[in-house]
Amino acid sequence: MTFPITRRAALAGAGALAVAPALAKAPLSGQQAAGVYRYKIGDIEVTAIHDGFWQRPVEGLVKNADLFEVQDAMAAAGLPTEKISITFTSLVVNDGKSLTLIDAGNGDAGAPTAGAFMKNFRAAGFDPKDVDAVVISHFHPDHINGIRLKDGTAQFPNAEIRVPEAEWAFWMDDAKMAAAPDGMKPVFQNARRVFGPIAKDVKMFSDGKEAASGVIAAATPGHTPGHSSFVVQSGAGKLMVMSDLTNHPALFVRNPDWQAVFDMDGEKAKAVRRKMLEMAASEKAQVAFYHAPFPATGQIAKDGEGYRLAPAQWSSAL
Amino acid sequence: MTFPITRRAALAGAGALAVAPALAKAPLSGQQAAGVYRYKIGDIEVTAIHDGFWQRPVEGLVKNADLFEVQDAMAAAGLPTEKISITFTSLVVNDGKSLTLIDAGNGDAGAPTAGAFMKNFRAAGFDPKDVDAVVISHFHPDHINGIRLKDGTAQFPNAEIRVPEAEWAFWMDDAKMAAAPDGMKPVFQNARRVFGPIAKDVKMFSDGKEAASGVIAAATPGHTPGHSSFVVQSGAGKLMVMSDLTNHPALFVRNPDWQAVFDMDGEKAKAVRRKMLEMAASEKAQVAFYHAPFPATGQIAKDGEGYRLAPAQWSSAL
Repeated sequence: MTFPITRRAALAGAGALAVAPALAKAPLSGQQAAGVYRYKIGDIEVTAIHDGFWQRPVEGLVKNADLFEVQDAMAAAGLPTEKISITFTSLVVNDGKSLTLIDAGNGDAGAPTAGAFMKNFRAAGFDPKDVDAVVISHFHPDHINGIRLKDGTAQFPNAEIRVPEAEWAFWMDDAKMAAAPDGMKPVFQNARRVFGPIAKDVKMFSDGKEAASGVIAAATPGHTPGHSSFVVQSGAGKLMVMSDLTNHPALFVRNPDWQAVFDMDGEKAKAVRRKMLEMAASEKAQVAFYHAPFPATGQIAKDGEGYRLAPAQWSSAL
Repeated sequence: MTFPITRRAALAGAGALAVAPALAKAPLSGQQAAGVYRYKIGDIEVTAIHDGFWQRPVEGLVKNADLFEVQDAMAAAGLPTEKISITFTSLVVNDGKSLTLIDAGNGDAGAPTAGAFMKNFRAAGFDPKDVDAVVISHFHPDHINGIRLKDGTAQFPNAEIRVPEAEWAFWMDDAKMAAAPDGMKPVFQNARRVFGPIAKDVKMFSDGKEAASGVIAAATPGHTPGHSSFVVQSGAGKLMVMSDLTNHPALFVRNPDWQAVFDMDGEKAKAVRRKMLEMAASEKAQVAFYHAPFPATGQIAKDGEGYRLAPAQWSSAL
């Protein structure tokens, strides 16, 4: 064996076969394939729809860990250590009775590398007019902006918008907005931009109640005051939709005590995260996370003091 | 929190919101998305094309480990412990000068759950007439049958077929076929079916030589006598195409001393596997395996006595 092959060896090897010198008949594509992946939960068809990513420095992401520890965790996952790509993956739940979207993506108000939701949604064969319900986990902009574009257009014109009662109570409260630090006020204002025009029609759900056909809400506060997870259940199948219970699993599933800067109540978020991850590990349930690498689903296993996400094996069979 | 949600709680929760009782406007899809994923290696565009899977019992897969150990490794990866889905992922390499396919898939001669290559290849925007070269890692049927369908059709009519010299010398040798155990004779016969009609045009490559434009061969015998890996290199980018150096990475990257029943010379395969995995880990090079879960690429890291594959994070950006 002559591994590793040096550049010189590669050049020396060139010409050993007659290689076509002309340009390839197939041009470079320059395009990624559609970010679409389907799986069944019992009789329910779940489709993961990718909305792209947002790249930010690793530094400053974790409130209560040293940068070098965080970078070690990134490297251990084969990821870059300076910048992290935080991805966005919504779920379409089709139980044959109703078409439900869980979290709406960034719409046209996210990073330039995000906003791929609608292209991928259509590539999956869906029409936004066919969505019966949009279920929201919490009111951070990357989850709700897809409901309404910057010009005011409602992207899912026939869908009922359903939100956690406690989340609505917090973000739509003008007294809370007035009392909030300036840096957080835009999140309050953005919620008004998105929900204001349809405020009287928005439906609320609470802990343990059906948020949409086949989708049960589970209050998991901490990340935001009314943050909700969901259970999709059919026959023997069960999916725990963990929403933003963790940000990137290579960091926060591996180290559940770490607190992301996005967690509003870090201590509460940590406690709820540990409880939910322990439940997922002991049940061997399938899980989905909004910010896990696409297709953002797998199983949780205990690993040392923390957990790890074993990504589901991609299958060509449904 | 009312987690875990029981079936009774879910039913009790139903009706809390007015759920549309009619059938969803969107029917169930019943179809997986195309098994296509692209990544860049320097200026070269690599497209992973999925050919489906073959399901077989876990029992009997590893020659030199107890079944319960193998099942533990499957469970640790979140995989089923009775049956394993062995997947097939070919690579299309486009360096702007030439379009090269590395390994041709099962064609129409594999398991009913395989044979998706051509559908996915076309979904990726490729035309089989545009393939300049088909480069083969070794002569096992799941790598070469895509060259020629059962009715004799050549699937890549304009492509030059390029194979490892040592592989050709072994499998096309009638004396070796005569001396082979009966169970192995069909593999010899299949190589004649695939290559016979074009035998005088098949091109050979050897260790360290260019197998196609941008693709350098590296002899890695053991799995078969002439088994070849490849290096795709451009600028600062480098991809180690590991072919069948391991079967499922959850078993054989984690436990490189385990020998799959498919390894013809188990001891030699083990030594070469350890050497290559160590090299990949120390170089932090990107790797691809034919039998890793789609999209079948990532990084190798040391882990205890073995290694693990950290799958590449799916990216919507090329």
